[in-house]
This record gives sequence, C-alpha cells and structure tokens, in this order.
Amino acid sequence: MQRILSSQLHGHLGQTVRAAGWIHRRRLLKSVAFLILRDRDGLAQIVITEPQQRELLESLPEETTVSVVATVTANPSAPGGIELTEPQIEALTEPAVAAPFDLFRPQLSATLPTLLDHAPFALRHPRRSAVIKIGAAAVAGFRTALTEQSFVEIHTPKIVGTATESGATVFGLDYFGRRAFLAQSPQFYKQIMVGVLERVFEVGPVFRAEPHDTVRHLAEYTSLDAEMGFISDEYEVMAACQGAVAGMLEGVESLAAQSMQMLEAKMPALPAEIPIVHFTDVREMYTKATGEDITSEPDLAPAHERWLGGWALREHGSDFVFVTGFPTAHRAFYTHPDLARPGFSRGFDLIFRGLELLSGSQRMHRHSDYVAALAARGQTDLAPYAGYLDAMAHGMPPHGGFAFGLERFLGRLLDLPNVRLASNFPRDLNRVTP
Amino acid sequence: MQRILSSQLHGHLGQTVRAAGWIHRRRLLKSVAFLILRDRDGLAQIVITEPQQRELLESLPEETTVSVVATVTANPSAPGGIELTEPQIEALTEPAVAAPFDLFRPQLSATLPTLLDHAPFALRHPRRSAVIKIGAAAVAGFRTALTEQSFVEIHTPKIVGTATESGATVFGLDYFGRRAFLAQSPQFYKQIMVGVLERVFEVGPVFRAEPHDTVRHLAEYTSLDAEMGFISDEYEVMAACQGAVAGMLEGVESLAAQSMQMLEAKMPALPAEIPIVHFTDVREMYTKATGEDITSEPDLAPAHERWLGGWALREHGSDFVFVTGFPTAHRAFYTHPDLARPGFSRGFDLIFRGLELLSGSQRMHRHSDYVAALAARGQTDLAPYAGYLDAMAHGMPPHGGFAFGLERFLGRLLDLPNVRLASNFPRDLNRVTP
Repeated sequence: MQRILSSQLHGHLGQTVRAAGWIHRRRLLKSVAFLILRDRDGLAQIVITEPQQRELLESLPEETTVSVVATVTANPSAPGGIELTEPQIEALTEPAVAAPFDLFRPQLSATLPTLLDHAPFALRHPRRSAVIKIGAAAVAGFRTALTEQSFVEIHTPKIVGTATESGATVFGLDYFGRRAFLAQSPQFYKQIMVGVLERVFEVGPVFRAEPHDTVRHLAEYTSLDAEMGFISDEYEVMAACQGAVAGMLEGVESLAAQSMQMLEAKMPALPAEIPIVHFTDVREMYTKATGEDITSEPDLAPAHERWLGGWALREHGSDFVFVTGFPTAHRAFYTHPDLARPGFSRGFDLIFRGLELLSGSQRMHRHSDYVAALAARGQTDLAPYAGYLDAMAHGMPPHGGFAFGLERFLGRLLDLPNVRLASNFPRDLNRVTP
Repeated sequence: MQRILSSQLHGHLGQTVRAAGWIHRRRLLKSVAFLILRDRDGLAQIVITEPQQRELLESLPEETTVSVVATVTANPSAPGGIELTEPQIEALTEPAVAAPFDLFRPQLSATLPTLLDHAPFALRHPRRSAVIKIGAAAVAGFRTALTEQSFVEIHTPKIVGTATESGATVFGLDYFGRRAFLAQSPQFYKQIMVGVLERVFEVGPVFRAEPHDTVRHLAEYTSLDAEMGFISDEYEVMAACQGAVAGMLEGVESLAAQSMQMLEAKMPALPAEIPIVHFTDVREMYTKATGEDITSEPDLAPAHERWLGGWALREHGSDFVFVTGFPTAHRAFYTHPDLARPGFSRGFDLIFRGLELLSGSQRMHRHSDYVAALAARGQTDLAPYAGYLDAMAHGMPPHGGFAFGLERFLGRLLDLPNVRLASNFPRDLNRVTP
C-alpha cells in the first residue's frame, strides 16, 4: 500500500491508508493511547484503543520507525482536524534506544555540547531541521539569482599546493608524500575563472585553522562565493551582491516559509537599494552620534557595526547596509586601491542586522599591480602564486567579487546565539566528531 | 557607455556601441586588420583600417583584454552577418604575455600535461570552457530533479575524525594537534541525515588518496550524492536515480545546448525505463553471447560492462543499463543483503555507455545488522562508527541511495579520453597545482 504523507492525509478522509515515520511522542492515557507520528512533512495523530496495539506501542520508544495502516477520520479537536483510527502498527526496526533528551517538546532544553554530541539525534528536532531547510532554500535562491545574472557555477580544488592567502591559518596535509593544504577560500581560483567565464560562483566548503573558540568561528564552513569581470567599479559588484542576497531571501520566503514560521523568524527588511556609506563617513557619523571619537580608527569594531546597523534600520528601514572604502592596509593584498583616495580601497563590507555578513571588493587586474602589492607586503618569492599570477599575465578584465559564510547568514537571519547551531556537524578547535 | 555582449550586437545595427573582451585572434592583412573579440557569449569581428588603431592592435598580443567602441555594421560575409567598424580600442591591462599555445584554433593541440600546467590559460579555450558550462548545467538539472522529489540539499563535513569507510585511501591531516582525515564520501552523513529529513542530496568535493595514475582516477572530485528513506526496496532508489540522471540531461539540453554542439557531443538515449538486469543474468548473457564462461566471476570487469552497454543500446535503444544484485562480499558493509538470494545484495550499478557511472543500494537500517556486518568484516571496535551507529540505534527507516562523480559523468557524456579533462584543476598522484 502506497505511503501517504502527514500533509496529504486530509485528502483521504474515510479511507484506509498507510502512513510511516518516527514515533515522535506517545501519550498513554487510561482508556486511550496516542501515537504522534513524525514524517518529513509534519505530524499525524494516531488513536489507539485496541489492547494489543497499545501493548505494541508501549514496547516502542520514541524515535522507533513505524509503518501504520489506519483509517483517516475527521475529529475537530485533533490537530489539523483529522486523526488516524483503528491502526495496525508495524515497527520497521528493533525498538529505538532511550533518548538522551526529549525531541517532542517544542523547545530543545539540552545544552549546546549535548546537542552537538548527539547531533544525529538532535537534528531530528523540528527546530533543528528547520534551520537546515532554511539553509537549503537560501542557497537555492543564491544560485537562482546568480544564474539569472549569467554567473556559471564552478567547483575549485580544496586541496592546494601552497598556503598563500594567509599562511598561519591553514590546515596542512600529507599529499602522496608531499605537503599540501586545505583551501581557506576559493579566492584565487574564482579570480582565475573570471578569465575563463567572466562571471562565476561557487558554493562549497572552506577550511580555517584559526584557533579561536568563539560563538562566531567554525573551522569548516560553507562559503558562498561570486566573482565577475568587466566591471566599472565595486558598485557593480555590490549590485550583484544585493541581487544574490535578495535571491536568498526570496528562496527562503518561497521554499521555507513554514520553517521560518516555526522558528518565529522575521524576514529582514531589504530595500530596493541597500544604503551605502563610505568608511570615513561611518567614522564621522558614529563620532557625532556617540561623542566617542573614532575618526582615526583604521577599521570598524563590532560596536561600530552594531551602531551602523541601527542607523540603517532607523533612517532607511533596512536590515542591510554597505560600507565602502575600507583602508587598503586592512584589506587583502588583491584589493584594488581607490586611486582617487590614497590609503583607501575599493573594498566593501555588507552589514546585516549590525554584524558584518560579507566582504567584497574590486580586485586588482594588472599583473604588475600584483607584483608590486605582494612586494609591498614583503612577498618577493612569487613561485607560490604562479598559477594565479599566470592568469593575470595572460590578460584579465577589471573584476571583483564577494564571499560569505552560509552559517553566518543563517545565524543572523534566525538570531542564533552560536554559529554552531547553523551547522549540522560543526568543526571547531575541540570538535571533529560526530 | 554600457557594454554590449557579442550575442546582442545584431540588435544594435548602425549604432555606436561598446564591446569588451579578450583579443581572441588578430589577423593582420595588408590593407586591413581583423580583431576577433571573445566575450562570455562568443566572438565578434572588428575591422581595423585606421593606421593608429592598427598600430595599437599590433602591440597587443592575444588574450589582452580590451574595450572597443565601434559601429555595428552589416556584412553578409562576416560571421553572423555583422561586424564592428571604425573602432576605438582601449587596452584594459598591459599587453598579455606570449601565449604558450594558440587558443584561437578550433582544436587545442597541446599535450595533456601542457594543458594542465597552463590551466588558467587553457581553460579559456571555448572547447575547454564548454565542458565547465555543461557540468554546471548538469548539476543544476540534478538539483532541480531531486528538489522536485522533495530531497533537501545538505552540506556535510569534509574533515572527519576517523577513517572508517576504507582506511587505506584517505588523506590524513593535522587538526589542531590531533589526527583527522578528509572525507572520502558523505556516505555516513547522508545516511544519518535520512534520519532527519528522509530525503537528502549533496554536491560537494570528496577526496581519495588512491595512488593510481590512470585516465579514470582523480584524488579530488565533485561527488553527486543522494539518499532516501522509507523505501520498499532498491528499485525505488533506482527510480529516483533515473530521475536525477534525466534531470541532468534535461539541464544540459536546456542550458548548455550550444556547448554540446560545439563539442559535437551526442545526447545519450535515455528510455522511459532504463533496462534492469540482475548480476547473475549479466554473467549468463555474456557467457552465452561470447562463449567465455564468466558464470562464477564475483564481479563485472570493464569488458563485461562494455558488452552490456552494447547490449542495452542494441536491444533497448538505451545508453544506460542498471545491474542489480551484486554479490554482498564485493559491496560496502552497509549494503543491504538480498534475503531471498543468499550471497547477493541489494546493491546496483548504473552503466553509462558501457562504463560504470554510479553505484547505489538499499542500505541496512537496523542497528543490530550493522554490528553484525562490521563484526563479519573483522570490525569489533565500534568507537570509530559512534555517530553513524548512533543514528541507527535511534530509529532509522529502510533507506538507500547512490553516488557518482560529476567528472566521470562528463567524461562519458562528452567522450573525453581522460577524466582530468572534466576537471578544471585536477588533483592526482603527481599534481596539486595550479
């Protein structure tokens, strides 16, 4: 008999159907027992009065998988107005082991380490699986938006021969007897691929060996990367970036509305044009507003970003705000300088609800500029950059791009207290299992 | 002035427009010079008669990026019936360095090692970038087909704590002072996630430390993985698999038809139902057809797969054929045995044009079956399998899935002589750059 999902039962009123899923909860009352069945679409209530079926249910702990043949019956007081009656229950495995904590309560009360230790179990809680579904919807929206803008998806190597971007924070590995590294970003490769396809994006893992134990750091996360050529300036990149973020929000709204509702998460306000403020203006605005003089600070601190987030919401009704023109010295070596403002760059950040979500910039595109910028940072041995500089030497267009972590986006969207809750199996300083 | 792409020039006949791209080819004739400009959409011919412009062009080697303001002019003898005349050329960088080989010829004559050494350059050849575009279209189709079947996209960790699937072929790394490994597949995690979401898929890198130097092996490739719960048998998995492959072909046909045409690649024949043959029947059919007795062989050799591929095409007009029921001893420990045929499993392969494309199976789903299967293979220390077995102990549905490499799919689809040509920056025994 074909399986009917919980969401489709209402269309089979009066019929005998087969449902299947996990025993989400048992309620064993005196004269009646209830089995709340969970499947990928939601919950279904099954009413048990027959003694043998009740005995069977009593022997099956929560999370045991079952198949249930029963009659779909209207009951205005049941959740959704229907329930399954006169069931024949069949266990699909041996009884599940005892649960380390209850999955059937609306909130998970277990501590974070307990949730992570028991991730294969904890992720089954509807509030945890909702995060995964929202993430999948956001990524689908990211891809759709960029594909519509003629970006092509690429897959770049995660095992790389040199630790060039920032040597201290990469994982080393033994690669057939020689030393290799895990890519901390697809930065060089996506730039190279602009030389091939003009517009590229990638969704893939990146690896950071940063020994930080904070609520914001992961040693492995899913990076959303885009890069585009033949731009006039970084504002074109920011427009593509806004399009990608808008696509993610549309994806969430159209594909994961139910999950958003369950988490009581509010869709962010994204205006037709995200406000853009130059770095030096942010410093002045903050100084004027707070009386604390930050006009000679070389970078924005989290407190400044929070203040700016509040400003964008008050003044522009926006949960997002771009900051442009960061000082060159605080940006990656490939960032294009702002030739009209010495010391400042064409690098930008996107602040989402008062927290830096992503960084981007126009990149340099002339081979000679790369050689000079690397030399200025003390890099005179260019051998580790060979493939990257090869692309620049063979003719590259003015280009730029941006990158951000899916987990950070989800953390901000869903107001998660720890980025680990946006990852299914987070990797950090102390955790490499499950 | 806004840039017009080569594919859109015909809509601007008589107008002065700006085009931009790479100098694909220069043809310096006596009285006239031609600049063939390449952008992401194709080629445009620019006619130069003015001496200063010609002098400029002579100083700009192939692959230099340029912006060109010119008039769109009809010329029936030009490619596409139009050309750009009276151009003002502006170089966007310094002149490109000398090309290691010509990109403007229809075929790339450089050897494979040369192509790979110069990948950032070689990938710009339209026949190389076509492979990337076809790959992106195939992956988009894979995701669409599975999303329509309620599969949810997941991202599982690539750094794992134990080398459990097959210890000899994993890369080890130093993870904050302890030993960790690169995941050789998302197998355990996707099974765990069936316990959470029922149906999941992942597109991501996998890592194989196999010291094989063949035309079929890569040390890192893009794996397409799917896994589904509450199945009756492996035939349901095969149906989902056929749907995924059909989606990939639809993606290629609708999004990359031009690239397929350029490569003169023939779309494969995919019937409404891919023929399915049991392993033991393949042995008998082959023996009968060839006179060579393989009825007691424990696995299929490449020659047998080739023969079967020919049979499927002749008898069923299909470039694909499923083989089911492989001997249990030759499949992964998690493969569900066929209880009706001792010694045989619920594992299957999909043969694509005579070559194994993918493997799949119904998996075991009872915790006790896992403990027994591991013990039978000499694994009595279950600690390395803790998270995986945790999922099984907490109630799993009957489930199954499949996995295959994007590069192998592309290799077969495009008849590439070496799987390295399906990867942008292949990683193998001897190559970890560029």
